[in-house]
Amino acid sequence: MTTEAQQFASDNYAGICPEAWAAMEAANTGHAPAYGDDRWTHTAADAFRTLFETECEVFFAFNGTAANSLALAALCQSYHSVICSAAAHVETDECGAPEFFSNGSKLLVAQGEDGKLTPAAVRAVATSRSDIHFPKPRVVTITQPTETGQVYTVDEVQALSAVCRELGLKLHMDGARFAHAVATLGCDPADITWRAGVDVLCFGGTKNGMAIGEAVLFFDRALAQDFDYRCKQAGQLASKMRFLAAPWVGMLENGAWLRNARHANTCAQRLAGQIQGLPGVELMFPVEANGVFVQAPEAVLEGLRARGWRFYTFIGGGARFMFAWDADPGRVDQLAADIRAVSGETALAA
Amino acid sequence: MTTEAQQFASDNYAGICPEAWAAMEAANTGHAPAYGDDRWTHTAADAFRTLFETECEVFFAFNGTAANSLALAALCQSYHSVICSAAAHVETDECGAPEFFSNGSKLLVAQGEDGKLTPAAVRAVATSRSDIHFPKPRVVTITQPTETGQVYTVDEVQALSAVCRELGLKLHMDGARFAHAVATLGCDPADITWRAGVDVLCFGGTKNGMAIGEAVLFFDRALAQDFDYRCKQAGQLASKMRFLAAPWVGMLENGAWLRNARHANTCAQRLAGQIQGLPGVELMFPVEANGVFVQAPEAVLEGLRARGWRFYTFIGGGARFMFAWDADPGRVDQLAADIRAVSGETALAA
Amino acid sequence: MTTEAQQFASDNYAGICPEAWAAMEAANTGHAPAYGDDRWTHTAADAFRTLFETECEVFFAFNGTAANSLALAALCQSYHSVICSAAAHVETDECGAPEFFSNGSKLLVAQGEDGKLTPAAVRAVATSRSDIHFPKPRVVTITQPTETGQVYTVDEVQALSAVCRELGLKLHMDGARFAHAVATLGCDPADITWRAGVDVLCFGGTKNGMAIGEAVLFFDRALAQDFDYRCKQAGQLASKMRFLAAPWVGMLENGAWLRNARHANTCAQRLAGQIQGLPGVELMFPVEANGVFVQAPEAVLEGLRARGWRFYTFIGGGARFMFAWDADPGRVDQLAADIRAVSGETALAA
Amino acid sequence: MTTEAQQFASDNYAGICPEAWAAMEAANTGHAPAYGDDRWTHTAADAFRTLFETECEVFFAFNGTAANSLALAALCQSYHSVICSAAAHVETDECGAPEFFSNGSKLLVAQGEDGKLTPAAVRAVATSRSDIHFPKPRVVTITQPTETGQVYTVDEVQALSAVCRELGLKLHMDGARFAHAVATLGCDPADITWRAGVDVLCFGGTKNGMAIGEAVLFFDRALAQDFDYRCKQAGQLASKMRFLAAPWVGMLENGAWLRNARHANTCAQRLAGQIQGLPGVELMFPVEANGVFVQAPEAVLEGLRARGWRFYTFIGGGARFMFAWDADPGRVDQLAADIRAVSGETALAA
Repeated sequence: MTTEAQQFASDNYAGICPEAWAAMEAANTGHAPAYGDDRWTHTAADAFRTLFETECEVFFAFNGTAANSLALAALCQSYHSVICSAAAHVETDECGAPEFFSNGSKLLVAQGEDGKLTPAAVRAVATSRSDIHFPKPRVVTITQPTETGQVYTVDEVQALSAVCRELGLKLHMDGARFAHAVATLGCDPADITWRAGVDVLCFGGTKNGMAIGEAVLFFDRALAQDFDYRCKQAGQLASKMRFLAAPWVGMLENGAWLRNARHANTCAQRLAGQIQGLPGVELMFPVEANGVFVQAPEAVLEGLRARGWRFYTFIGGGARFMFAWDADPGRVDQLAADIRAVSGETALAA
Repeated sequence: MTTEAQQFASDNYAGICPEAWAAMEAANTGHAPAYGDDRWTHTAADAFRTLFETECEVFFAFNGTAANSLALAALCQSYHSVICSAAAHVETDECGAPEFFSNGSKLLVAQGEDGKLTPAAVRAVATSRSDIHFPKPRVVTITQPTETGQVYTVDEVQALSAVCRELGLKLHMDGARFAHAVATLGCDPADITWRAGVDVLCFGGTKNGMAIGEAVLFFDRALAQDFDYRCKQAGQLASKMRFLAAPWVGMLENGAWLRNARHANTCAQRLAGQIQGLPGVELMFPVEANGVFVQAPEAVLEGLRARGWRFYTFIGGGARFMFAWDADPGRVDQLAADIRAVSGETALAA
Repeated sequence: MTTEAQQFASDNYAGICPEAWAAMEAANTGHAPAYGDDRWTHTAADAFRTLFETECEVFFAFNGTAANSLALAALCQSYHSVICSAAAHVETDECGAPEFFSNGSKLLVAQGEDGKLTPAAVRAVATSRSDIHFPKPRVVTITQPTETGQVYTVDEVQALSAVCRELGLKLHMDGARFAHAVATLGCDPADITWRAGVDVLCFGGTKNGMAIGEAVLFFDRALAQDFDYRCKQAGQLASKMRFLAAPWVGMLENGAWLRNARHANTCAQRLAGQIQGLPGVELMFPVEANGVFVQAPEAVLEGLRARGWRFYTFIGGGARFMFAWDADPGRVDQLAADIRAVSGETALAA
Repeated sequence: MTTEAQQFASDNYAGICPEAWAAMEAANTGHAPAYGDDRWTHTAADAFRTLFETECEVFFAFNGTAANSLALAALCQSYHSVICSAAAHVETDECGAPEFFSNGSKLLVAQGEDGKLTPAAVRAVATSRSDIHFPKPRVVTITQPTETGQVYTVDEVQALSAVCRELGLKLHMDGARFAHAVATLGCDPADITWRAGVDVLCFGGTKNGMAIGEAVLFFDRALAQDFDYRCKQAGQLASKMRFLAAPWVGMLENGAWLRNARHANTCAQRLAGQIQGLPGVELMFPVEANGVFVQAPEAVLEGLRARGWRFYTFIGGGARFMFAWDADPGRVDQLAADIRAVSGETALAA
């Protein structure tokens, strides 16, 4: 089969990075015990503990839908609720998975200005009701970075965890692109997670260069009780676990996770830098991770499509471009050039 | 990491077969659309349609727990029930997954003599009650081959599907080791499935030589309505689907699925042939697939453990040996020799 | 125990009306078959069919939470979604019950101006997404009258059902105060339900004068398949069903259901008429059923509390007064007088 | 409507006893706060605390299906399991309700000889597996008295709770006919419940003379955390709670609960005493509560049906007769006489 030209519609379009692939290949030798009782799984879990500088509990799930939903289900009973941003992936793009895994825990949307939750917004929702007809708030979930590519600072996470502790809430971080946030922040992974008060992190591997797989890290180990049973029952226990674990070893042991994310972020900056100030074209959000959201007239988007580009669009005329570990800078430049060209033509025509 | 000596405790201990690996490698080129809208996924689905000679609907799930549970949930409402054998994996080894995915569909155990369901046993359960306090029977599930390695013949499946049709029940086949059954039967896959009246088949890839992955085939296509949504919500939709699909292409296009299964079955026969008639040693079940269940005195099992063999045991002194696509015949012979030696010593000591 | 003075905080504070009580008393004679196979249950179901002039399927549930949630669960699979108003009781006051009963069906809030759903708002939500990550819209639910007491006209319901049919959606009516809506509209119950395109109605008995009980009416009888099993499994099948059914006979056979509702509505009008135009006091919503929502300065609400009145409040200074079948007009006048007095004092003090 | 002749097919055929009725009537005066914040609810809860001589947490549910299922769901996560007898109502007659409310907790059937669980049977199931593929045992549930009318002694319950404590299991008692067990034992309610190690009791009101209603008593109060939210979400919170609570006041304050149960038990003994030793007729179980299970040739059962008697039958020729609070001794004697007559005729004919 021939290869398609690189598109930036999604960072899920990329394949498996060399480090993850090599680790899978190395794991594919001989026999190994099943269900996680193998050396690769232990090594991968230890690699997370080393990276995060703490004795966290580590579990491996197949994808982010499951990782986040299982983590939230572990923190909630069915009559509890989860406070999230209106733009949170769990709210907008999981087809009801959190409600399914938890058997009914309701997501409560807190209003924020730019997709990030604030302590005030959390407090407003959490304290809005205390009667039995309202599902009891129990967890706050934040997406780091957000769906539109903004990164919570350490201070922001600390402020959120402070209000969580005050109100008896747990703090969950959906880190489908966690590596990209760390790459931007330049901090230790521990600083933006447990040291800042995060209880559970879902660390995404797929968008970071793996074929499949997310890790669920419980920094509050008591919350991990029986989580292995929960994964098993929910169809998230791999029998040949080594193949879910080994890529993590490849990603973590030599820093590929961070290199991949840095490269992707750099490509986003590269595009953003080349299209700023073009007529009619605006960045919808600050570019802080691996995505660029471009507001442009429909004619511009149409022109890009005509030149072969694929991308997701938003109501009101926005286009999303996401960069993966293997984004080709030359291809990024092509995209920038096409945006320039099309926006120039459109401005002329207007 | 060094390789462990081959054990026959589980066919999940084996790695990825060359054909599956090569297909994954071939798929790992450039970019591809996510969530199944890629060429590998389409090719894999078509390969199943060709193999089964019918326009079935094909879905890919991460593991057997999910594949079976989602298929049953698609056939049932929460107040329905599923008739199965007492030894069925869904009943004994899924940690309540079918009940979880279906939100409460109860498994009703039909009594059989040797782990296979019979039309009479199905009828007895399905007609035992018709009041509202009893969950309405809706599906029959059979494991092909059974957990203890017996294979349903085409006649047997036809007889079961006849009673299903008569009683308004759907017929689901848990084919975690479906390839091994086909290898034994020597029939076309269609003969033992839809032509015999099976509505839905879960075709196992993991035990057949893949890293991860099961296929769900709906022969009655109406039953597949919205099954993609069901998979998504339940955390079983892979974003980089090509890596879940490609190995199937590798397995199906040149017959690796069947070669792997035949090899595994042959190894089971090889062991069985060498240990029959030994003092105190008996086969617990006819050897019809890739497993051998050995009844032996505890001293014999202890002796095998002392010689380094690992295996699952059963109440009453049974040991299970399972053979994978890569089982080493020399190592099978070693196991046979050790059983011979240990049983001889034990008989002498007695 | 002594009786408390009548309050208008909730129409759930009222007791059992004489007609419902007398029917329960009449039903409490001798023995009767259990689980609905008794004459009272058959009579009650027939009374609904007569009242609605159609052969609908009728079921009895213990309360509105269950009736609505079970009805929605019958219309949805877990990966489907339900479109509702932001003010809908199922969204705001059921503690996640719809999600619990359906195992995850998500409620999608459509924006409206005054708590009523419009065809345009339904269409906007239902057509906003068609990808697999978004739970597939399947049902529209409207509350008749709304939580704030507005009544959908026959034309409005017809317009909603037209868009539902066009988009393949079912139409559910939460009629916790259905009688009050009919009393206002002055139409036949059939006109505002199945003739206008409603598929399922939950007809509330509790707020209409019964101790316990709601009826679920399926006008599209195919949708009622196995609904009795669903009720049983969900703990909503009364063993001594006659006591859940008999009050309905009492309510329906001589028109008590409508008399009760008319009286309650009249009391709401009585209060509204006496407080219009008072300084600082405004009606928050048109008074079309049995509730009056009064916007007033906090000092006024405080003054009412000081005079012994109890009521629910809303953010921004609103008070809710609800009238039941037994609301005492004299007591309504007392409330009006107190509002007049307090608002006058407050205006003077300002 | 005319009254049917008394039948003993079910103790659910009886109506509301005078004490329960009088309390409902007394409660039906004026207005009262909703959702349990009323005097009747507080009084009823206190009456349970007095009766059981402990500060237990008390909740009111509509029926036994819900009471038991909610209590088990409160004790379990979805991946836990519940050990019960093969004859337990939760296993045989709840249409999958425990699995539904708990979102998948599996019931594990322990084999016993006569429908009662034994410590050995509990231990055998609880310790049979400890791997992740088997739902983790978490609760033991016993039915007191059993479905076939046997009563656990204080010693038996103590022995069960000892094994529960040793194995980390909670002990739940399904007391749909709890009053009948206490009437037989002649002990304090506390002796057979919390003093013997029971953590949660579902105390049945319906079969004891009420229209509707069961009480859930948490002796281990920590287990009751947020149980009110659980009830609300599951459609088991009555808005006009006083009418669910008041009958309990009527039943408990003057001992009607115990008188009713004694009368029912006495009628069972009355029947048993008159039919012992008849040709071909045998008691299937010791008569220790309000039911009599009669083994008899099909011809005898047919003869009874011909004389107008209705009863449930069992495979192998058994008939069940259940006596309620209002069972008419004269009618019991008629039944005995008819059994005598029919069995005599049948014996002659043979």
